[in-house]
Amino acid sequence: MHTLIVHCHPEPRSFNAALRDTAARTMRALGHDVEVSDLYADGFDPVEAPRHYPCRANADVFSALVEQRHASTHATLPADVRREIARLEQADLVVFQFPVWWHAAPAMLKGWFDRVFVNGGLYTGSRRYDRGHFRGRRAICSVTTGAPAATFGPGGRSGDISLLLWPIHYSLHYMGYDVLSPVLAHGVQDAHGGYAYQDDAALAGELAAHRDTLARRLANWQTDRPLRFPGWDDWDEHGTLKPGIVGYDRYVRGCA
Amino acid sequence: MHTLIVHCHPEPRSFNAALRDTAARTMRALGHDVEVSDLYADGFDPVEAPRHYPCRANADVFSALVEQRHASTHATLPADVRREIARLEQADLVVFQFPVWWHAAPAMLKGWFDRVFVNGGLYTGSRRYDRGHFRGRRAICSVTTGAPAATFGPGGRSGDISLLLWPIHYSLHYMGYDVLSPVLAHGVQDAHGGYAYQDDAALAGELAAHRDTLARRLANWQTDRPLRFPGWDDWDEHGTLKPGIVGYDRYVRGCA
Repeated sequence: MHTLIVHCHPEPRSFNAALRDTAARTMRALGHDVEVSDLYADGFDPVEAPRHYPCRANADVFSALVEQRHASTHATLPADVRREIARLEQADLVVFQFPVWWHAAPAMLKGWFDRVFVNGGLYTGSRRYDRGHFRGRRAICSVTTGAPAATFGPGGRSGDISLLLWPIHYSLHYMGYDVLSPVLAHGVQDAHGGYAYQDDAALAGELAAHRDTLARRLANWQTDRPLRFPGWDDWDEHGTLKPGIVGYDRYVRGCA
Repeated sequence: MHTLIVHCHPEPRSFNAALRDTAARTMRALGHDVEVSDLYADGFDPVEAPRHYPCRANADVFSALVEQRHASTHATLPADVRREIARLEQADLVVFQFPVWWHAAPAMLKGWFDRVFVNGGLYTGSRRYDRGHFRGRRAICSVTTGAPAATFGPGGRSGDISLLLWPIHYSLHYMGYDVLSPVLAHGVQDAHGGYAYQDDAALAGELAAHRDTLARRLANWQTDRPLRFPGWDDWDEHGTLKPGIVGYDRYVRGCA
């Protein structure tokens, strides 16, 4: 079995990096081959742009979707995108390790989605959601936040965590993944020591607890029940939810 | 009066660029000075990273929040961030023009949030939400999507647009903005001509309709009722929603 960890944090000594190492160790102990895409360390370019497509379908007007499709067909995808896709093709489980910045993933990780999940190659109009390319595989977000857990409930000050993570979870659903409920490390305050948890006994204790939680969750990666999303059977021919489908609301309100 | 348009699309002949021009023309006709931050054309760097902070508060361990705060205090913020902040300080209205990519803003625009809304300089623990730096100013997202409007309702195939835009709207609320309901141009299919609407009569007609809608909405920028978010009066001392506060759910379900 294979696990891919997509890691997004600029600081090698961060809480996030420590959790990445916990994820890698845990999955190796379970017998997995583990690969890490360390986006900052690799200098990944998160900006989808014409410069990635020297062989254009349309040299005059740039459309990301048109060029992704064309490059998929003609085997001219950028080398870094090809590398990430090869890792994804191997991975039974994908772990995303990142901090919440501005109520979402950092730009570096968002751009990984923009560039790597290529139109044509990895999805088409009919090959999405529960018919998506990666159906049967699993994905999980392991996320740090900078505020206490209590502030992330419905209407809470920091924003409902189930709403903040909804878009990235839906993107993973779009690609066919079974998405596990996220592992949340709240209150990772860089104000308390600049993420230098190594030098701070209280932070070191918090980190140890978060590491235990992550390791326990990953140990159950095959048996945990995935989050619920609507799929093809739930939509009519206009892409609208059929009457009587209730899984959707339950998910949006039930994730935190 | 001043308007800042933060524009995020790689193609100068795109639908998005045309809507940006409509926004600029509309606001100039209303007597505004209009500035455009064209993120792709300017080569904006969306990656928050150590390289932006030559004068570090902590040279050993990088924390974005710590370094933003330090650079704000010591007037060593990066030149591009200082320029964006100066534009924001002038702007009575900020218009964000972007396509939905992977259920959110493109990485280029997400990184503008990550880098420009600096800790210390533009917000602190107590200077947020309805006490935020930009309180009294207004912001609006003008957004294109690649699928029909019907698919963006609750449980719809493309994802509920009110959930997809919730994080970016909440970030604007966090900074103190009154956030107007978004202007949505659905079904902008690059598959139909690679965004080259100039060459396609049907697309040109759609674009004209979207331009009219955007111009009409912007003409009412001062009088439209902003979206509802919880604020300081709605939270207890733990940052949890007080009992009996109902505006939150109304917003989440009512935006589309």
